[in-house]
Amino acid sequence: MKIVLLGATGSIGMSACNCIRRFPEKFEAVGLSSYNNAGKLMELVREFRPVSVCIGNSRASAQALAEIPSTIKIFTGQKGLEDMVNEADFDVLLNAIVGAAGLRATVAALKRNKRVALANKESLVIGGEYIYGLINRGFGEIIPVDSEHSAILQCLSGENKAGVESIILTASGGPFRETDKEKLKNITPEQALDHPTWSMGKKITIDSATLMNKGFEVIEAHHLFGMPYDKIRVLIHPQSIIHSMVEYFDGAVMAQMGVPDMELPIQFALTYPDRLPIQSRRLDLAKTGALTFFEADYNRFPCLKLCLDAGRKGGTSPAIVNAANEMAVQLFLTGRIRYDQIAEIIEDSLGLHASVPVDSLETIENIDSIIRTKIMKRFG
Amino acid sequence: MKIVLLGATGSIGMSACNCIRRFPEKFEAVGLSSYNNAGKLMELVREFRPVSVCIGNSRASAQALAEIPSTIKIFTGQKGLEDMVNEADFDVLLNAIVGAAGLRATVAALKRNKRVALANKESLVIGGEYIYGLINRGFGEIIPVDSEHSAILQCLSGENKAGVESIILTASGGPFRETDKEKLKNITPEQALDHPTWSMGKKITIDSATLMNKGFEVIEAHHLFGMPYDKIRVLIHPQSIIHSMVEYFDGAVMAQMGVPDMELPIQFALTYPDRLPIQSRRLDLAKTGALTFFEADYNRFPCLKLCLDAGRKGGTSPAIVNAANEMAVQLFLTGRIRYDQIAEIIEDSLGLHASVPVDSLETIENIDSIIRTKIMKRFG
Repeated sequence: MKIVLLGATGSIGMSACNCIRRFPEKFEAVGLSSYNNAGKLMELVREFRPVSVCIGNSRASAQALAEIPSTIKIFTGQKGLEDMVNEADFDVLLNAIVGAAGLRATVAALKRNKRVALANKESLVIGGEYIYGLINRGFGEIIPVDSEHSAILQCLSGENKAGVESIILTASGGPFRETDKEKLKNITPEQALDHPTWSMGKKITIDSATLMNKGFEVIEAHHLFGMPYDKIRVLIHPQSIIHSMVEYFDGAVMAQMGVPDMELPIQFALTYPDRLPIQSRRLDLAKTGALTFFEADYNRFPCLKLCLDAGRKGGTSPAIVNAANEMAVQLFLTGRIRYDQIAEIIEDSLGLHASVPVDSLETIENIDSIIRTKIMKRFG
Repeated sequence: MKIVLLGATGSIGMSACNCIRRFPEKFEAVGLSSYNNAGKLMELVREFRPVSVCIGNSRASAQALAEIPSTIKIFTGQKGLEDMVNEADFDVLLNAIVGAAGLRATVAALKRNKRVALANKESLVIGGEYIYGLINRGFGEIIPVDSEHSAILQCLSGENKAGVESIILTASGGPFRETDKEKLKNITPEQALDHPTWSMGKKITIDSATLMNKGFEVIEAHHLFGMPYDKIRVLIHPQSIIHSMVEYFDGAVMAQMGVPDMELPIQFALTYPDRLPIQSRRLDLAKTGALTFFEADYNRFPCLKLCLDAGRKGGTSPAIVNAANEMAVQLFLTGRIRYDQIAEIIEDSLGLHASVPVDSLETIENIDSIIRTKIMKRFG
């Protein structure tokens, strides 16, 4: 299986490399990309000998580019990413780019009728309607890499989707699961970056603390599994052992569990519906301690509510939430706004911009740019 | 779907009747049996109008038999049960008989190449080797009705069995999960009959307290899923919410959960691999409280260990355990032996009788009869 791996030097990308290393006779990295980490990308190029590479930020890469053997085709920048996906000879695009930049790569691969193993949240959050317009016309397929969506896919295995009563997305609840609403105003970036179970990048860790991340996952689940929003529930499960569940109309609830390890859903997205072995730590429930569950509190976690409302509204609303959230999280991380202002900024943006149908990628990119520019002007 | 329902007036049988009532256009009870409860059986005959009925204990049934319309064919006794299965025109045998009497009915249905929805534990515990000899030569199929085995079947749905690393059978642990070994000697029948989560018959409730029931389920799982004993684990889970699990070789653990309700696995055994809706109570994990898990303690629960050892040894060993246990439980319930003597009697029986290969039903019935007679002589 020939794999183009975008975002190869990030956390998902590095786990994906482990999967490729585990089965060198099955997996082949034919394309690799990194936005900024030219040094690490060069290491991977030496190890995997891909056919093509792309470095997103070309200024950061002059020295690295010079080292790449002339047999390897080099792409640069956002446009280069799309060109690489359009030109490469591959079977699966593993899209582990962080941010809206991942959308065009996903669309390019789908248009070539390929499987996209999708770790890029934005593709479906902002582009879900457009992308499933393509898929429903017969272009390609998306297999989720996110542990929650992978769990749901595994719980749907061999089942008839007509029998699904609800999809239950579990959420750790983040570090502020039990924090008073009043105290949530003055959370510092350091407090918010201290996530209890998963080790991730800064942006996604903040999204995990505000539960915005879970809101995005609900929107993704809506598109991935063709489920109406009233059939998707969020359940707080602080131990993050059950990665998500599907409830059937006979009352049976299927759950997928495991120790937190991204290699499992990454590898499963490559080999779905088959599995390949992974010799990692095993879940030992007798040692894990109690598994607990709580209803999500939409009052203390307004970002979750804003995101779900935007999902229900559809059109460009999720793109507005995504852009406003990304800006707000940056402003919070750099100390320019309070924690509770993240939700305020998103709410303001939604209030100022009506939702319009997503008829093209340009529509999405346009509203994304407008929202970012406005927030930048206001706080920059 | 034409159903022969054996053990129609018991707890499983009554739940099965609810499934048939729920879908009168899909399910039809063409044969009904009861061992002793002629009155209740007559009610079901009036309701379902089967083609044939069987009453196991013919002495108890003179009056009832007289009331049955002449258009309905009547069978009596153990032999009548087998004859009814041999003669009836049906699609699925739902075998909910309690005890060794269920074995020949299961075999008769399999030889006619039918599906057996199996709630009779003894069929596989004492006859598993013989029965899977038949099934592996192409005769019929068994779909389990037990909630644990049904859970495992659901966790295997759409998966490749080669990827199974282990089967994890959950057990409530019974009322004596935390009782000291010393105190376990003097347990009374009343204490033992007070099961925390499931409401069942007396014999199976005692088997649930000694964990013998779980030992039997391991033997059944070994046969049902073709799994070696070292891939089957028992995990104590007092809340009985997770009905069992399957661990795959990539570390994923699939679990099936629900509120305790036998209608789900009964109906699933009829419709497998499809599901039909049931409008019963739904699992609400946020209200359920914590789910906890503990290793099984083979020291305090010697019946479990004896049963697993007998399963591993194979041949007639499980039949010896089954017969000795059934006698010992009766002796315990009637106050003639102490609680801890149940395990002693089983161990003695295993020590006195070598295991021989199960080459016929007569071999099984012969050892069953020998064990019962010996224990009767000793304690009768």
